[in-house]
Amino acid sequence: MNKGSETRDRILAQGIDLASRKGIESLSIGDLAKATGMSKSGLYAHFESKEDLQLQVLEAARQRFVEVVIAPALLQTRGLPRLRDMFERWIDWEITRNVAGCPFVAASHELDDRPGPLRKALVANQQDWVDGLATAVRLAIEEGHLREDIDTQQVAFDIYSVFLAFHFFNRLFSDPKALNRAQAGFEQIINNIIVEA
Amino acid sequence: MNKGSETRDRILAQGIDLASRKGIESLSIGDLAKATGMSKSGLYAHFESKEDLQLQVLEAARQRFVEVVIAPALLQTRGLPRLRDMFERWIDWEITRNVAGCPFVAASHELDDRPGPLRKALVANQQDWVDGLATAVRLAIEEGHLREDIDTQQVAFDIYSVFLAFHFFNRLFSDPKALNRAQAGFEQIINNIIVEA
Repeated sequence: MNKGSETRDRILAQGIDLASRKGIESLSIGDLAKATGMSKSGLYAHFESKEDLQLQVLEAARQRFVEVVIAPALLQTRGLPRLRDMFERWIDWEITRNVAGCPFVAASHELDDRPGPLRKALVANQQDWVDGLATAVRLAIEEGHLREDIDTQQVAFDIYSVFLAFHFFNRLFSDPKALNRAQAGFEQIINNIIVEA
Repeated sequence: MNKGSETRDRILAQGIDLASRKGIESLSIGDLAKATGMSKSGLYAHFESKEDLQLQVLEAARQRFVEVVIAPALLQTRGLPRLRDMFERWIDWEITRNVAGCPFVAASHELDDRPGPLRKALVANQQDWVDGLATAVRLAIEEGHLREDIDTQQVAFDIYSVFLAFHFFNRLFSDPKALNRAQAGFEQIINNIIVEA
C-alpha cells in the first residue's frame, strides 16, 4: 500500500465515524478536513466532489462490514451456527465497531426519500445483506436445523426488525436492557422455526 | 379557536410534514417560511427561536399521534382487540397519516446522540408509547387473552421491532411486501403468547 492510499483509507475511516454520528448526507469535505486536520484542497486531491466523498465513505463502510461481519461468519459451520454468528457480529458491529451505531441505519433515514446514486448504493448494500440473511436461513433449512416450511425472506425481515429495535432502544433510550431484549427477540425467532433434535 | 391559533396550527402541521420528510433537527424558521408562504418575521411572532419551533412541532406531532392512534384505540375492547388496534393504527400512522413516514423515527436518528431539550422530549414521548404498548399487553393478560408468564416490556420491544422494520423496508427498499411482512411479524408475536381458546 502506498502512502496516498494509506492517507485515503485514514480519511475514509474518519468519514465512517462522522457518518455513524451525523449521517452521511450532511458529510462534507469541510467536516472531514476538520476531523482529519487536513486542508480542504488536500482532500480534493482524493475526492472529486462531496458526492464522490459520500459514495466512497459508504463503500468503505460496506467493505468494513464485509470484513468484520460477513467474511468471519462465512468461516462458521453452515446452518444455524452461521446464522447465529451473523447476528452476534451484527450486534457487535452496532456497539463496538462504530462510534455511534451502524452508519447504514443512520443513512437510511436521511436517504429514504432522496433519490440519487448515494441512496442507490445504500439500497443495494442493505438488500445484499437482507439476501445474505435469507441465504443463511435457507442453508440452515438444508442442514436440517430449521423447518422446511418457513419463508426465508420473512425470517430475514424478522431478524432485521430485532436489529433495528436494538439500535433504537440502545441509542435513543440508552436502555440497559436493550441487548438482552434483542437477544431474546432473536432466540424467539429461532425457537419458532427450529427443528427440535 | 382564534385566528392566531389557527395560523399557528397550520404552521405546525406544515412543520410535521417537513419533519417527516427531512427530520426535525434541520427544521428552520426559513424552511417553514418557504413551506407556508409566510415571512420569517411573521413566523417569529409564533416561535421564539428555532429550538422553540422544533419543540412545538414535536409536541404537535405527539398530539396528532394521541388523536389518531392512542385515543381511538382506547375506545376498543380491552385486551387483545385493543392491542391489535394499536398496531394497525400505528401502521396507518406510518403510511397514511404522515407524508414520509413516522416523524418520531426520523427524529430518533438525528437526535440519538445530541443531548438537549428536543431529544429529551422525543425520548419521553417514545418511552410513553412503549409503556402504552406494555400496558395494553398487561391488560390482555388480565383479560385472559395472553399468557401470564410473558414479559410485557419484551413484547413491547418485539412489536416496536416490527414497526421499525416496516418503516425501513417500506421507505428504503420500497418493498411491496413490507406491509405483509409486518403483519406476519405481529401475528407471530401474538401467536407465541396467546392463550388458546
